[in-house]
Amino acid sequence: MTADTGRNLEFIDPALVTRVTSIGGGPIGGGWTAHFLARGYDVTSYLHSEAEIEGFHDIINTAWISLEALGLAKGATKDRLTITTDMATAVKGAQFIQESAPEILELKQALYQQLGELVPEDVVISSSTSGLTMTEIQARCASPSRTVVGHPFNPPYLLPLVEIVGGDKSAKAATDWAHAFYEIAGKAPLVLNKEIPGFIATRLQEALWREALHMVANGEATPDQIDTALINGPAPRMAIFGQCMAFHIACGEGGMATNLDQFGPSLKLPWTRLEAPELTKELRDRMVDGCNDIASGRHFTELAADRDRGIVGVLKAISTNNEVRRKS
Amino acid sequence: MTADTGRNLEFIDPALVTRVTSIGGGPIGGGWTAHFLARGYDVTSYLHSEAEIEGFHDIINTAWISLEALGLAKGATKDRLTITTDMATAVKGAQFIQESAPEILELKQALYQQLGELVPEDVVISSSTSGLTMTEIQARCASPSRTVVGHPFNPPYLLPLVEIVGGDKSAKAATDWAHAFYEIAGKAPLVLNKEIPGFIATRLQEALWREALHMVANGEATPDQIDTALINGPAPRMAIFGQCMAFHIACGEGGMATNLDQFGPSLKLPWTRLEAPELTKELRDRMVDGCNDIASGRHFTELAADRDRGIVGVLKAISTNNEVRRKS
Repeated sequence: MTADTGRNLEFIDPALVTRVTSIGGGPIGGGWTAHFLARGYDVTSYLHSEAEIEGFHDIINTAWISLEALGLAKGATKDRLTITTDMATAVKGAQFIQESAPEILELKQALYQQLGELVPEDVVISSSTSGLTMTEIQARCASPSRTVVGHPFNPPYLLPLVEIVGGDKSAKAATDWAHAFYEIAGKAPLVLNKEIPGFIATRLQEALWREALHMVANGEATPDQIDTALINGPAPRMAIFGQCMAFHIACGEGGMATNLDQFGPSLKLPWTRLEAPELTKELRDRMVDGCNDIASGRHFTELAADRDRGIVGVLKAISTNNEVRRKS
Repeated sequence: MTADTGRNLEFIDPALVTRVTSIGGGPIGGGWTAHFLARGYDVTSYLHSEAEIEGFHDIINTAWISLEALGLAKGATKDRLTITTDMATAVKGAQFIQESAPEILELKQALYQQLGELVPEDVVISSSTSGLTMTEIQARCASPSRTVVGHPFNPPYLLPLVEIVGGDKSAKAATDWAHAFYEIAGKAPLVLNKEIPGFIATRLQEALWREALHMVANGEATPDQIDTALINGPAPRMAIFGQCMAFHIACGEGGMATNLDQFGPSLKLPWTRLEAPELTKELRDRMVDGCNDIASGRHFTELAADRDRGIVGVLKAISTNNEVRRKS
């Protein structure tokens, strides 16, 4: 990690960005394009082939229905989209580049080599990669300091999360800039401390997913039972308060400290195939302090009321959509 | 599992139940009490001590705010609650019993022994236990065939899931009855195939939770980053369509088959500390067939539109509640 390589970078004020380039014609590239259009940017989208154009418009038109429901930025219109299959044309004049090319390391490395030559060094290039690291991707790029990962969640036009992390040659200034820019662009950016495989959200989801596959493999549950259990159980609560705070609040006055002291032994129980870490004092304190930080002085009754009001809203959203399913 | 012991049981028509007994003065017993009151039942609640009464009313009053927001059943009122600290009085005349006593095996075994003597054999007794099995709990009960697990999710007055599973001596008629009754009583019952530790929802949640603890222990993430990632990433989607269908839909026409064939190799990647099962043809087919069953002929574009509409609703519910948090 080198502040060095990027120390002379002078990025544009993220609030002044008006022109964004999106690379990739699939659901992620299309989703990003729709998102940026809805936030009022001029967007140039690079597609690998003209054969992708029709499907690309379909993605954007589908996304637009939801984006309109959530509210468009002033001046936002699909007319501000330019599509090209020429990379030099695509990146010309871009003030930010979101790359969503296929998840093939060779291909991404060649692409970042090309972008390193085509794109001025003061333009941040952010990769949607979910499975590769920026350290790998930027290996052949001549100007890697401004390259970062900006990993969205599907569908990227709806789910606000963007996980940001640099590679070994990325400048802190670039991740800082991406953080500021994504926030202005209406996303919920999350800067990671470390470049870990799967980042944070996918690691959590993947642990759950692997446990689900184990249950199906063992005949303990069907896909329908798994999804029904999630929809009617942990998921609405998780959507409001995540998992740490869900446990913190459930334990009343004692919060996470009570949770760990009381339920800590249950970490030894075979409630999943995933072995738990040792519940050291250090881990306990990190969890407790972390939850208290999030609560920032709010009493648990206030937090519980917030949780309940949120869950009521989520349940109404679910039941509007999924009446049949909820009754399984 | 013995249909035998229960074959002569003649339970009341679940639609005719009007009197329910809830055992336990904590958040789960109180939550169940609030739920049943809100659905228009007469509820008798057993508390261990009169010292619990004030806190018990607090739980119900807090729950009532949300229950009113979701809509009360006709005739539902908190006036239909009777509180007692005498067990024989508590269960007298009960047509259904929800037991939410502390999670101590000795205590539950003694309680089910007592209930076995006090309660006519044609009344189903359902345990809120999250950590014990009914096979263990019913060990000393003289009439175990009508005892089942009916495991709610906290808060039980809001989250609809109830996981139902019998012990070795439970009658299938009892789990069938509980299934029908909970559905009538406004819950989303899910009957499990097997008595597995943690049931389905807690196993999934626990896998995610343990991965979260690993990340905190390793300094890879803070509790705030974990919750923020969930709230803005997988959770809103999970609340609408679970996890299997989220992947099924994300892969377009190809659905879960494409997901497993394309991303199957990623199961070998270190994206969590949980080892994945072998992706056998049998597991693949169960996943694919399961998702197709859930889709029941709906085209993926229709499913994706349902998903998006649902997520829009969830996001609105989250943002109303959690504006500060979403911007982290």
